[in-house]
Amino acid sequence: MATAKPVVEVCLTPALFYQYDVSQSIVVVIDILRATSSICVAFQYGAHSIVPVTTTEESLAYREKGFLVGAERQGSMVEGFDFGNSPFSYMDDKIRGRDIALTTTNGTRAMHLARSAAMVVAGSFLNLQTLADWLIKQNQNVLCLCAGWKDTFNLEDAIFAGALAEKLLPHFELTPHRDSALAAMRLYNIARNDMYEFLAQSSHRTRLERLKVDEDVIYCLTPDQTQVVPVLRNGVLYNHRDL
Amino acid sequence: MATAKPVVEVCLTPALFYQYDVSQSIVVVIDILRATSSICVAFQYGAHSIVPVTTTEESLAYREKGFLVGAERQGSMVEGFDFGNSPFSYMDDKIRGRDIALTTTNGTRAMHLARSAAMVVAGSFLNLQTLADWLIKQNQNVLCLCAGWKDTFNLEDAIFAGALAEKLLPHFELTPHRDSALAAMRLYNIARNDMYEFLAQSSHRTRLERLKVDEDVIYCLTPDQTQVVPVLRNGVLYNHRDL
Repeated sequence: MATAKPVVEVCLTPALFYQYDVSQSIVVVIDILRATSSICVAFQYGAHSIVPVTTTEESLAYREKGFLVGAERQGSMVEGFDFGNSPFSYMDDKIRGRDIALTTTNGTRAMHLARSAAMVVAGSFLNLQTLADWLIKQNQNVLCLCAGWKDTFNLEDAIFAGALAEKLLPHFELTPHRDSALAAMRLYNIARNDMYEFLAQSSHRTRLERLKVDEDVIYCLTPDQTQVVPVLRNGVLYNHRDL
Repeated sequence: MATAKPVVEVCLTPALFYQYDVSQSIVVVIDILRATSSICVAFQYGAHSIVPVTTTEESLAYREKGFLVGAERQGSMVEGFDFGNSPFSYMDDKIRGRDIALTTTNGTRAMHLARSAAMVVAGSFLNLQTLADWLIKQNQNVLCLCAGWKDTFNLEDAIFAGALAEKLLPHFELTPHRDSALAAMRLYNIARNDMYEFLAQSSHRTRLERLKVDEDVIYCLTPDQTQVVPVLRNGVLYNHRDL
């Protein structure tokens, strides 16, 4: 008798998260521009741990305890912090072995929201293949949670969810409520050959263009630049290789 | 000076409706399989009015008042009613001039949800061009509200929203939170040449296949079979030509 495959589902925005029972699932939090992308880079450059926090005040409290601190609000770096939300700011040897407290607009909120899951990990194009291989090995149900923008749907998180879902099939299967996953995979397949161009009119790219972080966007859409799976444990993210 | 264009937005499921201010907007309720499709057919065949109701008990109370009654639950017709939710059941001269009370799973709920809007109308592929022309004439903001399935996202409503949004541009413009509309239009553009095939794996088509209503699905995906705009006024739908 064939063993049932685990399922992969896609939650298009945090506002729809309540529709999923994740008590037996691994939730992949997706905030492509730019929280989960930066988190992958920080671990690739040797960070020991990353605490996702929701307020800049909390971050500053961690600084007192010797943490490096990063914060982004409305897409920009916050004064007095060590890092913003650009993945490039984490490409620095000073972070090797260090603990980091990170506040972001949407990614951090999504991680807090997902904390009832069996496990929470961070996904981005930067760790796509490593994450897919690791999830296939876990052999457990997966929910891709698009962090979106203030609870609204966004394209870049959806196309990553589609890219990941496509890699997980056929080791996984779709549920009867599969239309979000199908839509994400369809969108990824139109986007895959030029994701930057695909997102040209999107709300987030338009917003970031004003902030002159086009290089960030291009980098965040480049698959497989890191070989890490950031795993949340007791509210703290670690590199899966350190666990 | 150029006059500002009205905006067109897409709400992917009723669960996200709270994110939109519709006090100045026309809400297009979309329940392709099959409520808003059947409503268009009923008006095309001369129905005088349709009252969308949420319970079968309410429908039966209307029957006492001389209404014809239609009901669908879990995709099937309910015993003791004049109609189910198949558009073909409304292609009947007996409905000319009659008032109908209709209960459906998702479409009716979405109409009730949208009642704070400046105006609420019903959209389906069956009235796509007539609706688009009428909306362009109104020159007012439009929100396409996908009725979905029990508050979850579904593909057939999303691709119709994309089809309608595409027809409304360039008379309308997108808002900064435009990613839902962009996704819907992208999905429609993959689907448009064979929507039935596009939906092959979708949850609703899979569900309806078990109910043997493939002909319904094919018909509901056929553009421009009716020339009506069902408009909600004081909780009752009328043919726009009768108003």
